[in-house]
Amino acid sequence: MPAIMLFFSDNMAPVHPAVLAAMSGANAPDMPYDGDALSQALDATGTSANALALALLCPPYGGILTHAAAHIVLDECGAVEHATGGARLLTCAGEGGKLSPDIVRDRIARLGTGVHHTRPFALSITNVTEYGLVYRPDDVAALGDLCRAQGLALHVDGARFANAIARLGCSPADLTWRAGVDALSLGFTKNGAMNAEALVLFDPARADEARRRRKRAGHLLSKGRFVAAQLHAMLEGDLWLANARAANAAAEPLAGAAGARLLHPVEANEVFLRLSPAEAAALRAQGFGFHDAEPGTARLVTGWHQSAADVMPFAAAIAAL
Amino acid sequence: MPAIMLFFSDNMAPVHPAVLAAMSGANAPDMPYDGDALSQALDATGTSANALALALLCPPYGGILTHAAAHIVLDECGAVEHATGGARLLTCAGEGGKLSPDIVRDRIARLGTGVHHTRPFALSITNVTEYGLVYRPDDVAALGDLCRAQGLALHVDGARFANAIARLGCSPADLTWRAGVDALSLGFTKNGAMNAEALVLFDPARADEARRRRKRAGHLLSKGRFVAAQLHAMLEGDLWLANARAANAAAEPLAGAAGARLLHPVEANEVFLRLSPAEAAALRAQGFGFHDAEPGTARLVTGWHQSAADVMPFAAAIAAL
Amino acid sequence: MPAIMLFFSDNMAPVHPAVLAAMSGANAPDMPYDGDALSQALDATGTSANALALALLCPPYGGILTHAAAHIVLDECGAVEHATGGARLLTCAGEGGKLSPDIVRDRIARLGTGVHHTRPFALSITNVTEYGLVYRPDDVAALGDLCRAQGLALHVDGARFANAIARLGCSPADLTWRAGVDALSLGFTKNGAMNAEALVLFDPARADEARRRRKRAGHLLSKGRFVAAQLHAMLEGDLWLANARAANAAAEPLAGAAGARLLHPVEANEVFLRLSPAEAAALRAQGFGFHDAEPGTARLVTGWHQSAADVMPFAAAIAAL
Amino acid sequence: MPAIMLFFSDNMAPVHPAVLAAMSGANAPDMPYDGDALSQALDATGTSANALALALLCPPYGGILTHAAAHIVLDECGAVEHATGGARLLTCAGEGGKLSPDIVRDRIARLGTGVHHTRPFALSITNVTEYGLVYRPDDVAALGDLCRAQGLALHVDGARFANAIARLGCSPADLTWRAGVDALSLGFTKNGAMNAEALVLFDPARADEARRRRKRAGHLLSKGRFVAAQLHAMLEGDLWLANARAANAAAEPLAGAAGARLLHPVEANEVFLRLSPAEAAALRAQGFGFHDAEPGTARLVTGWHQSAADVMPFAAAIAAL
Repeated sequence: MPAIMLFFSDNMAPVHPAVLAAMSGANAPDMPYDGDALSQALDATGTSANALALALLCPPYGGILTHAAAHIVLDECGAVEHATGGARLLTCAGEGGKLSPDIVRDRIARLGTGVHHTRPFALSITNVTEYGLVYRPDDVAALGDLCRAQGLALHVDGARFANAIARLGCSPADLTWRAGVDALSLGFTKNGAMNAEALVLFDPARADEARRRRKRAGHLLSKGRFVAAQLHAMLEGDLWLANARAANAAAEPLAGAAGARLLHPVEANEVFLRLSPAEAAALRAQGFGFHDAEPGTARLVTGWHQSAADVMPFAAAIAAL
Repeated sequence: MPAIMLFFSDNMAPVHPAVLAAMSGANAPDMPYDGDALSQALDATGTSANALALALLCPPYGGILTHAAAHIVLDECGAVEHATGGARLLTCAGEGGKLSPDIVRDRIARLGTGVHHTRPFALSITNVTEYGLVYRPDDVAALGDLCRAQGLALHVDGARFANAIARLGCSPADLTWRAGVDALSLGFTKNGAMNAEALVLFDPARADEARRRRKRAGHLLSKGRFVAAQLHAMLEGDLWLANARAANAAAEPLAGAAGARLLHPVEANEVFLRLSPAEAAALRAQGFGFHDAEPGTARLVTGWHQSAADVMPFAAAIAAL
Repeated sequence: MPAIMLFFSDNMAPVHPAVLAAMSGANAPDMPYDGDALSQALDATGTSANALALALLCPPYGGILTHAAAHIVLDECGAVEHATGGARLLTCAGEGGKLSPDIVRDRIARLGTGVHHTRPFALSITNVTEYGLVYRPDDVAALGDLCRAQGLALHVDGARFANAIARLGCSPADLTWRAGVDALSLGFTKNGAMNAEALVLFDPARADEARRRRKRAGHLLSKGRFVAAQLHAMLEGDLWLANARAANAAAEPLAGAAGARLLHPVEANEVFLRLSPAEAAALRAQGFGFHDAEPGTARLVTGWHQSAADVMPFAAAIAAL
Repeated sequence: MPAIMLFFSDNMAPVHPAVLAAMSGANAPDMPYDGDALSQALDATGTSANALALALLCPPYGGILTHAAAHIVLDECGAVEHATGGARLLTCAGEGGKLSPDIVRDRIARLGTGVHHTRPFALSITNVTEYGLVYRPDDVAALGDLCRAQGLALHVDGARFANAIARLGCSPADLTWRAGVDALSLGFTKNGAMNAEALVLFDPARADEARRRRKRAGHLLSKGRFVAAQLHAMLEGDLWLANARAANAAAEPLAGAAGARLLHPVEANEVFLRLSPAEAAALRAQGFGFHDAEPGTARLVTGWHQSAADVMPFAAAIAAL
């Protein structure tokens, strides 16, 4: 099945040729365990970047406010609980996976404050959200203000952070430390790398703890230069943004074809639409691959390797339903 | 500095060309999270393979018998304690990093048996040991018998397992399940892979727990096909054994040159020798790289990429001291 | 303020004279750490009895199905997450704190089954529920059947188990092992003891693990004979049931007075009723003490030390609102 | 067997009458969970006081320096690992269970400093030591200075702290905060209470965390007034020191009788002496109860309830060996 017909997830996208080339270029003997010249970032898998970040921001007896549909809630098999030593995820509802200060404030108000109750220490948001929405700089800053007022740390799960930047055209700083973010899980794997995610901490005082927790979790690679090479290749010439722009652009024809079927605005590279089981079967029979979401709905995800032209057959098939 | 002059660790060896080629070959879009065809092994980093294995074999309130010089004791920043939820490492002494049934039995006898004391649930040995010695099939079987008699599980840290097999010429089964081993951390990274270690469980009933613990620890890669490709390349035509034989062979001239300086018999690809600070400095001034071990001693490690001929200049320099 | 006017919680009730007498009777030198003759039960605080029970029934990477209003969710500051090493509470809704097989089955159906998702290993119910309802033997048996079919263990938080037995007149076995219960946290502290809760395991094979986990959690008392004495005194002549019957009887006049204000049927010793802030203030001004529940509602709890006659003034004050 | 003939442990001593009286005096209805007037101390069992203290002072990825014979190493079934989330105990040797700055400094020097190795965050000493020796104010201050220089917190396991104060005649402040101690586990159970140990933190900023960790560990009692009453009774008129002086005094005739058999100076209420199996059997045949220590040695412990006169028959029997 040609790659351009698969819309399961950007996880299944290939590795960008520039990344592979950089990895081959790193293939000389060198010092292990990030002793090499390339490895200055703190890299890990996406699940572990989130879990390590939150272990730095929340003690075992604390709670982490987050959306009920967050990846850390639904898709990481308790990785946050493991890394933190048993902190609790305190979930909130919010349209399209997005949280507002009002939603978070209301959730906090319903928590007891005594020692019998779980005290929140951090807020974790996902940008791009799990439903493809984008937090803008002022959205994040409003949550950052709330966090400061409440004594909470702010974490961003940025598995698709590049897609948010590509959409907004702002600087990464505007979506992070300028808006009060303490830690960012910055994903490259969905966006053209092989296995490279960076954990970015905006407070350098946390670096030693972060490095020790990473080692302890088994996420310090002995041949870390091959991960570092990926990060360098992705940042070189802003390949990460070019890839994200391509993925976002590929989602547009699908969004247009979905029209009234859309469940959420399409702001990045994910399209959620109403689709009956029969309609889904019909599309699959034509060779298009994608995941079901809630019953009667589907999720389509585009990747850096798919151009808008590539996805036109799929868009046409959706429009023809 | 040419690679052939560096003897720090087999971790710094390059990736074998066949492995890189296989990884490039895996670079087509495919299902994530081991849904692809290549990924049937349970892979992780070496530290996490050990930690996951022991978490399967020992409860949080238990203890793990092991050598005081074991990698899990000295070099993993508490990864076993993290993965198990707080199990304790119960260390034993033993010449050259090697344990015997008598040593283990004696250590058990000194543990109290009541609820106030830590009850051992597992024994972990390293083959090749941290000092370059090899456990033979009957060595392992004797420990396996003791484990069964004492109700202990048996784990092998096989970061250099290939070097042991290459040395002994026996089958992997003789050093593992036939000798009573329950779990093997099987390393490929030191031996020519990029970042691939397999956790081999000889009881399939543990598979579901292992997969969940791996995911929870953040060690399930979304593009796992690139790790699987490495394992396939290493096993194809027994590349893993060819590489290990090369590394072992490269250690021989160094062992011969060290002569009476040797601290331990050289049975694989590690050479420990007495070396005064002045002698070490003299060798380093000639361009040879290696790590100090205990004061007045040094550790030399050869890799798959170094032939016996390659190491002759170093052997000559040692002999000339 | 006379004790009979306080309805905050049965936790504040005094210690029954027979219990105090038994404790004084235990005051001779004796072997520590349950080596004495009295200590054969596995005792702890209520929070730790729940947490220890669930740590025996659910691994760190698993989930525990329970009601969203359960004490383990709202009032134990993450004790279950701590004891289990990070298991997750998977909450369900249900009228009056009560769960049915349909509710639990539906919750399970919404959980993913792959390694990315939390797999449930246990169900925990509270009998008497946090809202004063009682599970009958067939209620528990229906959940027990579901648990067996789904491979789940079944735990009962029995902080007020005596009140359920007193209400139903059935045998404890009918509400526990005969109905498929694996572990019971059996509370005595609310019911006339000083600080004695028993963890009852219906599978003796778990005893060694339970004793080690208890010690490790710091809940093995050196002078455990004083806890054992309490349990003996409570069981002697069925004092525990007499006390529970008294507490239940004291709730009846309050339930009758509350009439249409009642939020839930009163089946044991807790009364939840609608009460405006002004009405609550008026009652407090008359000297009656009780806790607010949800906004506009209150919770009244009676204890073993309050007779139906004792509570008549409070009942009259409620009726007069 | 009369109590005065039992020398197993001060754990088996009875509860002092003043303590029992205070507990009876606390038996009126009152607010639960330390809401009562008596409960301002942070109380727990001895094992949990140590474990909670160390969880406050050391992160999960850190290490705790301590003596290899410490109670937290040998007798708490991994409670420290549990409470801290997997911190490692880094043990040191030292005559009579006592550590000096040189010993600790040397142990630190042998630890690696990179992320692969366990970094120490705390030192835990026991005063009176497990072998009955006493740290004097300048002993503690020297360790306190080392801790400050090395960035370590200092914890004192004071299960027999009263016996140290009784021996030295100094103020508790001289053995604690003035000497650089951060946390003290202050035991009362061995010294005449029923089940009361206090965790004393000299930095009030840690109070909220301590209270939450205690609750989470199940060590906040609902009827905490009965523990508070014990602490008040023990402190009233310095009963705790009178009891400790009595226990220390009772050890003196035994020490005198042991003479050349003594393994350690007797500075408090513990006597370690050489005793062959035959001699031990002979003493037991005369009705004296005590524990074996290392092979060929025994441990005798006196309690607050034994006067010097009471122990004379045992002293005579030892002298007659």
